[in-house]
Amino acid sequence: MAEASSIRPQPAASIEQWDFEADVVVAGYGIAGVSASIEAARAGADVLVLERTSGWGGAAALAGGFIYLGGGTPLQQALGFEDSPANMKSFMMAALGPGADEEKITDYCEGSVEHYNWLVDNGVPFKESFYGQPGWETPFDDGLMYSGGENSAPFNTIATPAPRGHVPQMSGKRTGEKGGGFMLMKPLIETAEILGVRAEYDMRVQRLVADGDRVVGIIAKQYGKEVAVRARTGVVLATGSFAYNEAMIQSYAPRLIGRPGAAIEEHDGKAIQMAQALGADLAHMDATEVAFFGDPQLMIRGILVNGRGQRYVNEDTYPGRIGQETLLRNENQAYLIIDEASYEEGCAADSSTPFFRFQPKWVAETVEELESDMGLPEGTLQSTVEVYNRHAARGEDPVLGKKKEWVKPIGSPVAALDLRNFTAGFTLGGLRTSINSEVIHVSGEPIPGLFAAGRCTAGVCAGGYASGTSLGDGSFYGRRAGISAAKG
Amino acid sequence: MAEASSIRPQPAASIEQWDFEADVVVAGYGIAGVSASIEAARAGADVLVLERTSGWGGAAALAGGFIYLGGGTPLQQALGFEDSPANMKSFMMAALGPGADEEKITDYCEGSVEHYNWLVDNGVPFKESFYGQPGWETPFDDGLMYSGGENSAPFNTIATPAPRGHVPQMSGKRTGEKGGGFMLMKPLIETAEILGVRAEYDMRVQRLVADGDRVVGIIAKQYGKEVAVRARTGVVLATGSFAYNEAMIQSYAPRLIGRPGAAIEEHDGKAIQMAQALGADLAHMDATEVAFFGDPQLMIRGILVNGRGQRYVNEDTYPGRIGQETLLRNENQAYLIIDEASYEEGCAADSSTPFFRFQPKWVAETVEELESDMGLPEGTLQSTVEVYNRHAARGEDPVLGKKKEWVKPIGSPVAALDLRNFTAGFTLGGLRTSINSEVIHVSGEPIPGLFAAGRCTAGVCAGGYASGTSLGDGSFYGRRAGISAAKG
Repeated sequence: MAEASSIRPQPAASIEQWDFEADVVVAGYGIAGVSASIEAARAGADVLVLERTSGWGGAAALAGGFIYLGGGTPLQQALGFEDSPANMKSFMMAALGPGADEEKITDYCEGSVEHYNWLVDNGVPFKESFYGQPGWETPFDDGLMYSGGENSAPFNTIATPAPRGHVPQMSGKRTGEKGGGFMLMKPLIETAEILGVRAEYDMRVQRLVADGDRVVGIIAKQYGKEVAVRARTGVVLATGSFAYNEAMIQSYAPRLIGRPGAAIEEHDGKAIQMAQALGADLAHMDATEVAFFGDPQLMIRGILVNGRGQRYVNEDTYPGRIGQETLLRNENQAYLIIDEASYEEGCAADSSTPFFRFQPKWVAETVEELESDMGLPEGTLQSTVEVYNRHAARGEDPVLGKKKEWVKPIGSPVAALDLRNFTAGFTLGGLRTSINSEVIHVSGEPIPGLFAAGRCTAGVCAGGYASGTSLGDGSFYGRRAGISAAKG
Repeated sequence: MAEASSIRPQPAASIEQWDFEADVVVAGYGIAGVSASIEAARAGADVLVLERTSGWGGAAALAGGFIYLGGGTPLQQALGFEDSPANMKSFMMAALGPGADEEKITDYCEGSVEHYNWLVDNGVPFKESFYGQPGWETPFDDGLMYSGGENSAPFNTIATPAPRGHVPQMSGKRTGEKGGGFMLMKPLIETAEILGVRAEYDMRVQRLVADGDRVVGIIAKQYGKEVAVRARTGVVLATGSFAYNEAMIQSYAPRLIGRPGAAIEEHDGKAIQMAQALGADLAHMDATEVAFFGDPQLMIRGILVNGRGQRYVNEDTYPGRIGQETLLRNENQAYLIIDEASYEEGCAADSSTPFFRFQPKWVAETVEELESDMGLPEGTLQSTVEVYNRHAARGEDPVLGKKKEWVKPIGSPVAALDLRNFTAGFTLGGLRTSINSEVIHVSGEPIPGLFAAGRCTAGVCAGGYASGTSLGDGSFYGRRAGISAAKG
């Protein structure tokens, strides 16, 4: 068929011959795509996945593998943690906003236990063990962990803390074998294959095919040639974030300029734009996950200060929250102040991110010297440490609410790690979708035949983040997209 | 004609009869609309303005009237301020980002002197006097003022300070007569009328009319009845921000939920959505102006601290910057700490906002007592004041760079004003447009026949703000929209 460079929808009448056909056509074979495929196939649809790379997996297969689940999953129960959909919702509304989609979060929390069981039924293994150390993820094969600061200030006073980071059991993580994300994707892909889901690789989606208002197919490039793919009942967009689309980052999330992370280059935002060309609405385009390259085992034992020498976040919270506070609200300026004994203790502790253990840039006998060496104005760091130590002597942190067990006066010698500009991240905004994963037109009505899930959509996160919410809403609303697309 | 509730574009073929016709149809008779109308009429077009309310003016006529101009305007020169387009650009790129549109800012700075002359030629009066006091605006009829923190840290080290807030001369401001915004709008409206621009009132735009990809008209409701308006060469959207569209605020700028300000209820974002329905692209939807209801004459004489008792912004900067730092980066928590002598001095000073002079909520002999009365953790406020005073004794503020003239140790008795949740604002994001005010399709190409300017577009502000940039880019790119729409 003829070439066309635009992402504008192509009229169905202009298609002379369909190169591929299926009931449901899914763009992207990551977590949202495979979840959609399974459910569409189970609903009786003939499913074809178009994947841009040469294999399945997407960003999911490279991820740590957290899936944010709760409300009383069998794993939570087995490990003695109480949770309920309402409690989970309280946390998510507080931590993932402002502006969080209450309908979507309510729906997500109420369906969370069923979704856990679905994952298990489809072969995803969760080991019955809890990892309680500070960290981004477990360094071992434990199945459950706090992954959003649920047990830290301010959320531990808003909802009853419960760990909700569910990690598929991996094997030999420290020996370089496959991690949690791979162990999530592999059984789901196997399930999809058993169900007869077909996949075509090296398929770069270009634009949607529309018959009036209805989406009836998609144009892709395969091996450099444009092909027309007919979708008899629905198209599912599941192609990931726009973290690697520089123009979109500049337009929507400019603090991420030059620092994409935990995304893959295929995350070019194209599916978002293809749907926008049909009038699709967007939401929360500025929202970003922010990774912070400090080892939580070190950070929790010291105090984090900004470019003015002031504390700004409780160091025992979810490190992604530290990342957001640093990049979005403190000009990406952070130093870790830690005494020698605590630094050594942190280095001796098990860590999921030993490669985040940096050497101190400055070391001094007194905070006064350290402050001067760091070039901070006289008295700034000294007063921060003095106030922290005054309360720490009583085991308290009234300023930021760090938990008693981690509050200890800072002694001498004392060091500072330079953690300025130590962030990266991916985007959380995208297409506005209903809880049935319909892509919503700016008029407020669904676009017939078009569905989406995963990071090309705005999911449960409006601004805040918790590890596992991307694989979480990607799989949860991926399933919904598959069910909806099979119905057409 | 038949009713239709959607904002989806209506096919031209479905229009049986046009109720109105013009070469250029402008939606909205505020600053962008009138500027577009004048230029379109001068280019020879027959121009019809559709205004939702019963009169011209929009938010502009109610505004203080700042227009952000520089690069060496006659007014700047007459008052002895040096400026150049390059210097102006340096400031704007630093203050209005991150993610500021360099092409647009460069263009805006290079055209700024010409634009000043255009305003003057069209009857906008600027009095040759400079107001140098701290404030949101001048309480008198002065023509020039700093309006973006140009002469404060950090910008005073990035670019040579020059005031760029140009204010049309008003009469009797303090006696309730018309302000600067009205004095900007009135001569422009008179100019438009002389040029033969027609206006229809009570015209609520509903959706665009398209012939293929080209916009050829607009459907509006007048006195409750739908009417079809044909635009022979172009439609200009100039209907203002989305500050009063609750769903859009929730989706894009949730920190403004419940706090719209300096916008009018007509700012419902509808024009943005009408263009989105045609595939128009967006930019910087999270960006917001933030007003802060503290009197600059008081704020500059004290120190502002956040909910942790820490300073976070230099108190001598543009108050809109204080607003953004407070709402967007400090959880809307602010207290002003000021000693009695400074409070009285501030109250005795001339002020543009005497209604922002609040009584202290707490007064004490010592900072220790004040801190305790305010419920701040022991040592927090004390150390903040101690560090500030230590440097202030030498006339310095190395922490935040407040100018020497305003740096003075805080004495006793000392008070705190409660400025928590004292913000409001309007939105700065919207349609992505070219420097010729073409509305850009998500494909990157202009949408034929569709132009836009003012606060329904993303202008020169990507995140930061300076007073006058809205009337500034609204009038500047309003003109461009008129010129482009007349060409078609």
